[in-house]
Amino acid sequence: MIIRETVNVEKQAIEAKKAAKTLSLLSTEKKNEALLIVAETLEAEYQTILAANEADLEKGREQGYEAAYIDRLALTKERIFDFAEGLRQVAKLEDPIGDIQSSWTLENGLHVEKVTVPLGVIGMIYEARPNVTADATGLALKSGNAIVLKGGSSALFSNKAIVAVIHRALEKTAIPKEAVQFIASTDREATQALFTMKEHIDVLIPRGGASLINAVVNNATVPVLETGVGNCHIYIDKEADIEKALKVLVNAKTDRPAVCNAAETVIVHKAWFDINRDALIKTFADNGITAHGDEYAVRHIPNAQVANEEDWANEYLSLDIAVKVVESVDEAIQHIDQYGTKHSEAIITENKATARQFMNLVDASAIYHNASTRFTDGGALGFGAEIGISTQKLHARGPMGLPALTTIKFLMTGDGQIR
Amino acid sequence: MIIRETVNVEKQAIEAKKAAKTLSLLSTEKKNEALLIVAETLEAEYQTILAANEADLEKGREQGYEAAYIDRLALTKERIFDFAEGLRQVAKLEDPIGDIQSSWTLENGLHVEKVTVPLGVIGMIYEARPNVTADATGLALKSGNAIVLKGGSSALFSNKAIVAVIHRALEKTAIPKEAVQFIASTDREATQALFTMKEHIDVLIPRGGASLINAVVNNATVPVLETGVGNCHIYIDKEADIEKALKVLVNAKTDRPAVCNAAETVIVHKAWFDINRDALIKTFADNGITAHGDEYAVRHIPNAQVANEEDWANEYLSLDIAVKVVESVDEAIQHIDQYGTKHSEAIITENKATARQFMNLVDASAIYHNASTRFTDGGALGFGAEIGISTQKLHARGPMGLPALTTIKFLMTGDGQIR
Repeated sequence: MIIRETVNVEKQAIEAKKAAKTLSLLSTEKKNEALLIVAETLEAEYQTILAANEADLEKGREQGYEAAYIDRLALTKERIFDFAEGLRQVAKLEDPIGDIQSSWTLENGLHVEKVTVPLGVIGMIYEARPNVTADATGLALKSGNAIVLKGGSSALFSNKAIVAVIHRALEKTAIPKEAVQFIASTDREATQALFTMKEHIDVLIPRGGASLINAVVNNATVPVLETGVGNCHIYIDKEADIEKALKVLVNAKTDRPAVCNAAETVIVHKAWFDINRDALIKTFADNGITAHGDEYAVRHIPNAQVANEEDWANEYLSLDIAVKVVESVDEAIQHIDQYGTKHSEAIITENKATARQFMNLVDASAIYHNASTRFTDGGALGFGAEIGISTQKLHARGPMGLPALTTIKFLMTGDGQIR
Repeated sequence: MIIRETVNVEKQAIEAKKAAKTLSLLSTEKKNEALLIVAETLEAEYQTILAANEADLEKGREQGYEAAYIDRLALTKERIFDFAEGLRQVAKLEDPIGDIQSSWTLENGLHVEKVTVPLGVIGMIYEARPNVTADATGLALKSGNAIVLKGGSSALFSNKAIVAVIHRALEKTAIPKEAVQFIASTDREATQALFTMKEHIDVLIPRGGASLINAVVNNATVPVLETGVGNCHIYIDKEADIEKALKVLVNAKTDRPAVCNAAETVIVHKAWFDINRDALIKTFADNGITAHGDEYAVRHIPNAQVANEEDWANEYLSLDIAVKVVESVDEAIQHIDQYGTKHSEAIITENKATARQFMNLVDASAIYHNASTRFTDGGALGFGAEIGISTQKLHARGPMGLPALTTIKFLMTGDGQIR
């Protein structure tokens, strides 16, 4: 079984790599044309996708998945039309490929060009959300990359149906349909086969929970673009404005608790806490937030549970929050160093020097002064569609748009130059 | 033993991480001043380094190392003064840190800055050459990074002496000496401990042979900047100019056979081979090049051995060359796809369309038309000192200078903005 799945996946990866060569040379016009045809076809065939989605939902209900999970899985006509709209937006984005970033001529006459090229083949490993199938495909194709999709088994029928529509659409375009591969096997080996296929796959992008991402990072020899786990902190400094502090805290915690840029811990300076704790407690109560605290916090917040190592280290992805009381901004930074995931961190203070110190010393992709961590998002920052939010430091950091799916090549033209 | 080494290495990595924070905030002037003091101290104390090097050489001779190996290990006063000169050159390079790459203000008034920052802590794993100790340290410090050095055991005394001099010099500067850590243990576990220390080390850079690089790539969970294995090809097209072809071939093969941008295989179009094979054979003979060929090549080149899978896949790093005869440029590209290491590849042809096809379709960091692969080098291309040549596609490709040792941060300044 292991061998068979590996062979099948390898066959698909090889097809993708071959298609990537054709795709890498297509003009912007041909690629955009293809994206628009895929968008149109998704709209025209939305009913097949809905039918397949119904099969996934039924299976999910049978297996007793939670409501939130079912909700992420469920498609509607509107959501499918949103996929199509997303592809049209991607068609409008600037093509990152073919740019000559710089060029120069050496003294010996050798002409050097540094050009932007596609990465090649992207391996996308993701969980329940079927929108990733359409969104990631659009971004990959626009940037001249082939894509191998491995979605969660709970969305299998939906994903298969979406890919079938994409394939039918691509047949009418200049993009070979082999540029979009979908691994239909739900076997664990099929996923693991992707981890080490360095000859055929140029990068793996995992999107999902911490356990999925860690499995990829710890087992892959193919380079990984690590995304998404956000154990984000709001630090309320002793010189924080109370109104800004509570407004940002509520937004970062409650606007969309399940997303990666939501806050998971609030670190509060003791001087501020001692003065403002009644307002803080009322804010928690008014917004349905459950506090877990360190010893000092628990002593003063009614019904707060004692936070343990898990509380500090993991995302709640719910209306729970961990509360840590500190004596200084340095202690806050130390806590973030220890438990943060280098995603998004915020300081609330009226003291610019303290803010600057926090922004300089905290190691994260996005650091906020007096604003919510929720802005770490390609759309919100004006980058257009994003393929994920990188929490690593190499290649891309923060929201990743089309440029993150490219690399460079040096092209040298000579007349017999030797060294 | 395993546990003890891991604990020691971790202690050093934590010290490096702490020092990296201080270092990341230093001005360009302070960093340059420190580099110049290190350079001066290396020159002043060259005799201690030579004495330590003598101990390594003696051990090497006792253990019967080959002459070429001993040669790479051996230091002279001049070579140590070259290290110092290298540091002075790095001091002159533009500081990549602190640049605001771009900044903009969202409609809601949130101000966004994208700034260049150091990676943090670099783990450098390398083999015999002691110059890497000084060169890598210089590039790391200039770009605001701490460095954990793990050199080959054959250069242990030399490396220890160089680091001791660097530490003595740093004590007179604003850079904490803990920013340069040297792992003195020759235990395998000490190296392996570095592979998974994600909390403290931001990137691993292996420099050395294929087996070292593969060990790091296959076992590290810390992100890796893969460097240097160059199985480079020269493709002589049917429309190649004979003079350019032979000149480039000889240069790429014989100028410095042991380096990564040297040619290891020549792929020859059959039409060209059939006409020019006597000249090719004479060129091999005149330059001491030993040919290993495919069936057709072996039939026509006197004394050529039959090339096997190893010949196609590995670097010779000697005056040996593999010879493959093909019927088309497509077949040449396919061969490179199968065996190339994405380093440097060349085509010799007078046909611009064929050259363009080759340059578009070959997947490598540097692709040459009518020039030698030997130009893939930071110095030759005008980038200044390089920390290695990346053969991967993420983050950095080709010769890596100071910008490859940086990442970015988004700094957002607001006034209570929420989403």
